[in-house]
Amino acid sequence: MSTLVKEQQEIDVIVKDILADFDGRKNIDAVDIFNKPDKREVQELVKNLFKIVYPGYFRDKSFKIYNPSNSYAVIIEDTFYHMNKQVFLALDFCKKRGTMTEDDRRKESYRICKAFFGRIPKIREYIESDLLAAYDGDPAAGCFEEIILAYPGLIASTVYRIAHELYVEQVPVLPRMMTELAHSKTGIDIHPGATIDKNFFIDHGTGIVIGETAIIGKNVKIYQGVTIGALSTRGGQKLSGKKRHPTICDNVTIYAGASILGGNTIIGENAVIGGNTFITSSINPNTIVSMKNLEMEYRTSENTIATEELHQSEEWYYII
Amino acid sequence: MSTLVKEQQEIDVIVKDILADFDGRKNIDAVDIFNKPDKREVQELVKNLFKIVYPGYFRDKSFKIYNPSNSYAVIIEDTFYHMNKQVFLALDFCKKRGTMTEDDRRKESYRICKAFFGRIPKIREYIESDLLAAYDGDPAAGCFEEIILAYPGLIASTVYRIAHELYVEQVPVLPRMMTELAHSKTGIDIHPGATIDKNFFIDHGTGIVIGETAIIGKNVKIYQGVTIGALSTRGGQKLSGKKRHPTICDNVTIYAGASILGGNTIIGENAVIGGNTFITSSINPNTIVSMKNLEMEYRTSENTIATEELHQSEEWYYII
Amino acid sequence: MSTLVKEQQEIDVIVKDILADFDGRKNIDAVDIFNKPDKREVQELVKNLFKIVYPGYFRDKSFKIYNPSNSYAVIIEDTFYHMNKQVFLALDFCKKRGTMTEDDRRKESYRICKAFFGRIPKIREYIESDLLAAYDGDPAAGCFEEIILAYPGLIASTVYRIAHELYVEQVPVLPRMMTELAHSKTGIDIHPGATIDKNFFIDHGTGIVIGETAIIGKNVKIYQGVTIGALSTRGGQKLSGKKRHPTICDNVTIYAGASILGGNTIIGENAVIGGNTFITSSINPNTIVSMKNLEMEYRTSENTIATEELHQSEEWYYII
Repeated sequence: MSTLVKEQQEIDVIVKDILADFDGRKNIDAVDIFNKPDKREVQELVKNLFKIVYPGYFRDKSFKIYNPSNSYAVIIEDTFYHMNKQVFLALDFCKKRGTMTEDDRRKESYRICKAFFGRIPKIREYIESDLLAAYDGDPAAGCFEEIILAYPGLIASTVYRIAHELYVEQVPVLPRMMTELAHSKTGIDIHPGATIDKNFFIDHGTGIVIGETAIIGKNVKIYQGVTIGALSTRGGQKLSGKKRHPTICDNVTIYAGASILGGNTIIGENAVIGGNTFITSSINPNTIVSMKNLEMEYRTSENTIATEELHQSEEWYYII
Repeated sequence: MSTLVKEQQEIDVIVKDILADFDGRKNIDAVDIFNKPDKREVQELVKNLFKIVYPGYFRDKSFKIYNPSNSYAVIIEDTFYHMNKQVFLALDFCKKRGTMTEDDRRKESYRICKAFFGRIPKIREYIESDLLAAYDGDPAAGCFEEIILAYPGLIASTVYRIAHELYVEQVPVLPRMMTELAHSKTGIDIHPGATIDKNFFIDHGTGIVIGETAIIGKNVKIYQGVTIGALSTRGGQKLSGKKRHPTICDNVTIYAGASILGGNTIIGENAVIGGNTFITSSINPNTIVSMKNLEMEYRTSENTIATEELHQSEEWYYII
Repeated sequence: MSTLVKEQQEIDVIVKDILADFDGRKNIDAVDIFNKPDKREVQELVKNLFKIVYPGYFRDKSFKIYNPSNSYAVIIEDTFYHMNKQVFLALDFCKKRGTMTEDDRRKESYRICKAFFGRIPKIREYIESDLLAAYDGDPAAGCFEEIILAYPGLIASTVYRIAHELYVEQVPVLPRMMTELAHSKTGIDIHPGATIDKNFFIDHGTGIVIGETAIIGKNVKIYQGVTIGALSTRGGQKLSGKKRHPTICDNVTIYAGASILGGNTIIGENAVIGGNTFITSSINPNTIVSMKNLEMEYRTSENTIATEELHQSEEWYYII
């Protein structure tokens, strides 16, 4: 028997074994292959929504445009059609599973999309306010165009503002798929359930987490590595629906690496939360919070090298 | 001479100068253009492996499917073929460079791929356990589908579980290319050499680093910004192969921003490691660790504004 | 009236309302659709520049190559053409807006591209030095190829070195679009304005921020989560152009999670900055800095469970 034939037979066995493992008893096996929101479709949807909310910035190369209005009418209708389809599919998931007939889902997804597209001018008003906040807040920003074309914070807040409208309409799965797309691109993880007012500015952004039940006021500025999170999720699914994340009032600035935790924690107006702080109870308005006891230890390298010779297995002093 | 001709001549000179610089004496110049793993191919490979381990979730649009089994047989065979090719190329890299004949590499890559695909049911068992851990651990998770379609932690652990099997077979370069792909998408950096048991849950995830020689038990839960790393890498290549990263026992929870460092550090069963802790020695089982002396300093803005006027050049009090 | 006709009429109204909102009075509306740098074009540009600076590593599948030099000549000329076009467009943005005639911009963009491509051998020299630094610094690195094909730190420093040359030539918008592309892929945010010398090594990288006016010497090694940032950006646009970020001298190592802040902060030669430190004033050469008072609190789970029963609403002790 030739090697090739032998290999083909071996591969056949492997394929059969893997197919046999697709027995539908695992949750990672999709029983019905066609009826679920599609990751790539959602990605296209978000891309097209960016074309709509930032007209003229994210160009569609498939059109040679003379009258932009015509092209936008086509993009809006097309996006409506695709969102309708994804919402229809999503409405049979999570808590809604099996609760609606196909016809109900069809009507409901149309209603939701109509409501969503009706709110696009409002969404654009919020995005415009975020853009202004970014320009005012960052001395490195050269102009508005630079922020729109390059700043990850604006990408994340834009996707959040879009996804939030679908979350409010109780669409399952889809809103989170959208914000996770932004999370993947920017390292900024805003749950679509969070409530965020106007003039929201995120600088740098990587490592930011904003939880599902967080409430954030106007003119809030957040830096990289900030968590607005839950104190503990040990309760698991039992905590679902409870307010687990903080409330941040107007004009608060939160510097890099700060963690603010807990559903009863309220950060008062105009407060400034210093870098690397760890906050689990409320802060009064107009307060500046910083870490106490932030003492550093300094040694010269000479001493350390001596110590190093004594404890060759102990490299601890290097890193801290 | 026209501007255009002049420009063409100038560009010719520039092109020649750059080509002259491709003299093969730099390590950033690939001497042999065809014989190395290809980034895009590896990306396709990972995409197709996701279709195989999560059947029905990541659909291939090129097939109009009536009987999914037929389509999966094609995907599995195709993925086998492409993995075989990339493993064959990778086997001539790093420590394996020049140690095998082309024929040896061909046989070895086939053997490895056969072993790998034979382990797909086992890989799927681990992924299923990670999915259950995510659902149990996160009150914001609406349903299994949402986790599969949107959670970055599951993407990162899935790619790790795939890449780890190739790492165990001592395939150079390829496993790391796979986990770095996941790192790029999720901000979660798990080295393919790490050993991670079942029911592994990563929440949010951005900024997580898990080192090459780390060992992680069952039911471990990790939050964003956690490092399971080395104490120091000053030894550079001399440390290669040594256990440089911690061991985390069963049922440990590690909250956001904690750093656990060192090859001799063992975190005992059921321990809870608090946020922002910095741990470089072993922790007993059933222990809760938190930062002491986490005192904060509070000032009202009024005072600060006064101080600000006194020290206009000193902006320190703003941020901390 | 049929449902379909009714829906079409409703969608028509929605479309008209959205188009009416594109009144050009918002900054998120691009008044002139064709005349701005294009995100996708810039992405292609960076991809092609990677093919040029790492010849043979990032292959162009559209060419069947016999003589690589011919193919590279084509890639270089093509990339020159596209960069010229994007620079031409960018020269009408930010501070340069309206300051140059179209003809001036054409000449200037050609001059800049000529200068840029003339510096490619120099750029490659720096990238080669970064590659060597990565290999020397990471015991997990198997070989040079693994670093080029998989390490995010090298991607980020390469894009930075490319973008910096355009920043130096005062091209608006484009340099930042390039580094933000790398930020999105790697979680490493290096402003194109920063000055970074040879042998620069970033390990893991996610969450690193390096500000516009930072200066970094030779042989500097930086780990994940490090910020080299400004003390405060409360001054907003008024701070534009001022040195707001630290200077890091030769041979400094900065471990994970350290924050070094302020334009007057200088970290002396050979200093080692420990993990999670927070530094806002200068550090002498040859100094090792670590956090003092890093005491941890340890409790056994038994005690905690008892406490938990007493204060069921207070979950604080879990996480810290």
